[in-house]
Amino acid sequence: MFNTLIWISYDGTNYSGFQIQENAPTVQAELERALAVIYKEPVRIAGAGRTDSGVHALGQAANYMAPFKIEVDKLPHALNTLLPSDIVVTEAETVADDFHARFTGSHKLYSYSIDRAPVPQVLRRLYSWHLPFPLDLDALERAAQIFRGTHDFKAFQSAGSSAVQTTTRTLNRVDPVELPDEQLLVIYFEGSGFLYHMVRLITGSLVRAGRGRLSEADIELALVGGKRSAVGPTAPAHGLCLEEVIYR
Amino acid sequence: MFNTLIWISYDGTNYSGFQIQENAPTVQAELERALAVIYKEPVRIAGAGRTDSGVHALGQAANYMAPFKIEVDKLPHALNTLLPSDIVVTEAETVADDFHARFTGSHKLYSYSIDRAPVPQVLRRLYSWHLPFPLDLDALERAAQIFRGTHDFKAFQSAGSSAVQTTTRTLNRVDPVELPDEQLLVIYFEGSGFLYHMVRLITGSLVRAGRGRLSEADIELALVGGKRSAVGPTAPAHGLCLEEVIYR
Repeated sequence: MFNTLIWISYDGTNYSGFQIQENAPTVQAELERALAVIYKEPVRIAGAGRTDSGVHALGQAANYMAPFKIEVDKLPHALNTLLPSDIVVTEAETVADDFHARFTGSHKLYSYSIDRAPVPQVLRRLYSWHLPFPLDLDALERAAQIFRGTHDFKAFQSAGSSAVQTTTRTLNRVDPVELPDEQLLVIYFEGSGFLYHMVRLITGSLVRAGRGRLSEADIELALVGGKRSAVGPTAPAHGLCLEEVIYR
Repeated sequence: MFNTLIWISYDGTNYSGFQIQENAPTVQAELERALAVIYKEPVRIAGAGRTDSGVHALGQAANYMAPFKIEVDKLPHALNTLLPSDIVVTEAETVADDFHARFTGSHKLYSYSIDRAPVPQVLRRLYSWHLPFPLDLDALERAAQIFRGTHDFKAFQSAGSSAVQTTTRTLNRVDPVELPDEQLLVIYFEGSGFLYHMVRLITGSLVRAGRGRLSEADIELALVGGKRSAVGPTAPAHGLCLEEVIYR
């Protein structure tokens, strides 16, 4: 058996998320279908992270035990000819037997894109949240500052989360970056672990702070006392993209 | 009657072009349907230019005679709430009675986007032509140079063109621009008039020149003698975008 890591990019618009489920189109199901054609037997993959329905990825990672060896340089092209055009495998590599895309320690880098044009930028509509309102970017940056570091993010998860042992997480980056030429505000989030809807809930809070509707004190209270009124709203899925999974 | 000019952006993926036709979805049909709701009577618009099936636009222009006056500042939002999300009206203005989006003198600026990444960039797949082959950008630039200026572009039109009085056209810009961070090559074309498929045929020739499969002499012959073997192939529609219609 050959433990193989593949890197995957996808447009999440037409999928009910990454992880396989009955009666709904998923990225994992498409990948396993293509791999089964290549290996002529069922192949089960393990993704680094689930992405929700409608969320995109440029650098999702997944591994699987290949029943026989295929040159990894040729694997992306072979898979891409079998995959729908909204899923593209960008790279493949052979990894150590004990590597597991999900359980081997990693960081994830997410981006959340906000379209700040007065009317929606039509070619970005599937990949950004259109917010034509004025935003105080200094206030938004100050709010982002509060989220950085290690906190109990219990308030920043949605109901329906699978049970987790601890809700303490560390965010190494919460960085709003303005791209004025593209009329975009992109917020980068990097950390070793995220709770269910955590990035989208924090994004919602940051936007409220940028609109002057949420104080820094309220955010601090949410992080220490779990105060829910400072949380969200949940930013829509289609602005979110899993940029990279970083194994160290 | 109030002569009104609207500026329109659209994702052409799901349309059989701009111009209205029977039994096929068109951008013009969607716009006229939305305008009829607002004005409570049929409204006929005239577009600055037809775009082919699958071609996008960020700055298409169209005008119509409005039966009554509506504040032009409010018109884009009113239309956008009635339009599908892949068509967005960006601006509206009142214009002189003799203004006509098509016949009033204008220049058009088109862009043609080529994705040069080794595998397709999945979020750009609907808006660029994926060409993972090496391209000699100096050779491509020299070929572009030949197309600039006034020439008889008879060889650079597709069959099925509507009869035109002359096939002489002037291209003010044929500018390949590399965007290395985005792994894109974007070619800009500006001129006062274009023949049917002209931009896509020239793009095809430029790519062949960049691959070392078409000489400058052949392009020169095509422009003076109509030599067809130096023409195209026709680059696919989805890399093309009408960036702007410029009225002077």
